[in-house]
Amino acid sequence: MDLGTFYREQLLNDCLPFWFPRAVDEQHGGFLHCFDADGGLVDSDKSVWAQGRMSWMLLVLFLEVERRTEWLAWAESGLRFLENHCIDPADGRMFFHVARDGTPIRKRRYAYSESFAAIAYAAHAAATGSDRSAALARKHFEFFTDWNFTPGRIPPKFTDARPMIGLGPRMITLVTAQELELRLGKSAETTAWIDRCISEIETWFVKPDMRVVMETVAPDGSISDHFDGRTLNPGHAIEGAWFIMEEGRRRVDARLIKLGCDMLDWMWQRGWDPEFGGLFYFRDVFDKPVQEYWHEMKFWWPHDEALIATLMAHRLTGNARYLAMHEDCRRWAFDKFADPRHGEWFGYLHRDGRPSSGLKGSLWKSFFHHPRALHLCAGLAAQEL
Amino acid sequence: MDLGTFYREQLLNDCLPFWFPRAVDEQHGGFLHCFDADGGLVDSDKSVWAQGRMSWMLLVLFLEVERRTEWLAWAESGLRFLENHCIDPADGRMFFHVARDGTPIRKRRYAYSESFAAIAYAAHAAATGSDRSAALARKHFEFFTDWNFTPGRIPPKFTDARPMIGLGPRMITLVTAQELELRLGKSAETTAWIDRCISEIETWFVKPDMRVVMETVAPDGSISDHFDGRTLNPGHAIEGAWFIMEEGRRRVDARLIKLGCDMLDWMWQRGWDPEFGGLFYFRDVFDKPVQEYWHEMKFWWPHDEALIATLMAHRLTGNARYLAMHEDCRRWAFDKFADPRHGEWFGYLHRDGRPSSGLKGSLWKSFFHHPRALHLCAGLAAQEL
Repeated sequence: MDLGTFYREQLLNDCLPFWFPRAVDEQHGGFLHCFDADGGLVDSDKSVWAQGRMSWMLLVLFLEVERRTEWLAWAESGLRFLENHCIDPADGRMFFHVARDGTPIRKRRYAYSESFAAIAYAAHAAATGSDRSAALARKHFEFFTDWNFTPGRIPPKFTDARPMIGLGPRMITLVTAQELELRLGKSAETTAWIDRCISEIETWFVKPDMRVVMETVAPDGSISDHFDGRTLNPGHAIEGAWFIMEEGRRRVDARLIKLGCDMLDWMWQRGWDPEFGGLFYFRDVFDKPVQEYWHEMKFWWPHDEALIATLMAHRLTGNARYLAMHEDCRRWAFDKFADPRHGEWFGYLHRDGRPSSGLKGSLWKSFFHHPRALHLCAGLAAQEL
Repeated sequence: MDLGTFYREQLLNDCLPFWFPRAVDEQHGGFLHCFDADGGLVDSDKSVWAQGRMSWMLLVLFLEVERRTEWLAWAESGLRFLENHCIDPADGRMFFHVARDGTPIRKRRYAYSESFAAIAYAAHAAATGSDRSAALARKHFEFFTDWNFTPGRIPPKFTDARPMIGLGPRMITLVTAQELELRLGKSAETTAWIDRCISEIETWFVKPDMRVVMETVAPDGSISDHFDGRTLNPGHAIEGAWFIMEEGRRRVDARLIKLGCDMLDWMWQRGWDPEFGGLFYFRDVFDKPVQEYWHEMKFWWPHDEALIATLMAHRLTGNARYLAMHEDCRRWAFDKFADPRHGEWFGYLHRDGRPSSGLKGSLWKSFFHHPRALHLCAGLAAQEL
């Protein structure tokens, strides 16, 4: 089976049938997503991230795979649930966690819910031509960037004695702006955000002399020699690497493509487990012990991101080494995460690849990283070198 | 070697020499405690919990093992550091995490720092006769109980749609009040807190029909059928079990001793891993999957607490089953957690008992659970049946 067919089959015959129609909440709208290995519902609560992410993913499949009316209808159910239940009327910010009927359970300091709503509305505008959805996409994006980049907006978790900045907000702003440009067309504002985020990532987080991408740094880019400041998240940096490669592809900018490939190379070197295979969750930049308990575990999403990054690097550079990395990752991940009995990937493995839990969905794992990787890899596989 | 000698040897020749004098910060006062397997310092930051806990533990050894002047001096250095650096002048609440020189890094919603300060000052008052320390102990305890039990004090993490109450604040209030009574003498206030906490634990958290101790429940004691509400922490409930047995011993109250033994029995049954041995970190009350990633890992402290609870249950009841449980736990724990090369226990093991990290100390692990267990078990072992 060729690579494109493999990924298309996995998407349509393994991943999608696990989630749908099971995840559609006919009673309250939106999506249920906390499922056990066999698809049994283990929690009826809903992640607001998941409502936006699942709506977006369905709309991308509607736009790019097939115009199935139920995919559009399900996505619109998610968007209605987001609009009717997931926004705090007190301040317009989105919640993080709601009950099945939409009763708010938790709002967080940070605002990633808004970024996933933004891409879902942008894809909906592209799918239906809705000006309202396009405007909502821009509004949520503006809210998200304001919240993340205006000093003083986010309630502090720490004192101001040791200020730190994160790779995460810059990565998510970058990919959200890219998605808005893809679905709604380029704008001066989104292009400025893309430029700014890539520049900040390159200036402060990417360390060529140490061959590493930091996850958090001081505002001047220096490394804080404490547990938190030293902790690397290889899968996350590899995800950021392909966001930058993708921008290099769109702009035909070899320098950006090389930056993304370097980030992939260094963090693959830091994150791939030479003993058992797979990507570690956390590493220490100086190889000191990591304080987070699950540092050695293998999570599903870094492997999905590494599948995309390695195949994209291969297609953009033609370097056979990236195809070999892709095949190593593909072999390991589909051997360990797959569940041929019930479909979809397990989320959480021990270091040696044994599942630590049967969960296929949780407040963190939904229909997003894995179908996105399968869909993007199917597309990349079909590209000429 | 008899059991008492075994624990005394472990305390004085394995645990203590790992921590001291290494942990004493001659430059800034207080204690360093983030150590690698060989005692190398991996983070110079200080946990405020650890400053209080380590001061308390040294003072207990001073009071109950030997009047070594350096133990008192080190403890007093910890108390001075607490007083000079760990209290926020803005509101009198303690920080959670400070830099080596005392610069505040993080304050949390909750207030456990105050409970550990309270027991440290109480033990200092007992060791030195200081009225000031006795008053500070009572002041910190009052602050702690006010913060935890006055509705509206703790900034909410969740909306009020699904209120939940925790075993933790009740357990810590109980043991802190017990420690104040032991070091400062009984008072109407501490006795009322002990009565209230045991009553609330028994009424709302202990479920005899299900043979379980819940970690969080709704305010009426009902179980919330969601990830968080179902999650059990067997080691924590076993720690609470011996706090209640100890109160039963002090009051010569067979009913309380039986309550503690039941809690131990049920949570040992729920938590002990029949395949690899050791206590799981989290379990689900309905045996559904647990969402926390490290649910299957074996942490040091539940084993320290189980050593105390099983030996105490044996000494209080004479039931040989508890001694067998103690020996099972002792065999497994000293085989897996011990590091004969450098002393002290590792903190974090995989399910099968292999170390997941070399850390001996972190923002969470210091000189507290393990020396407390060794010291209490040495004392229990010496008791007549």
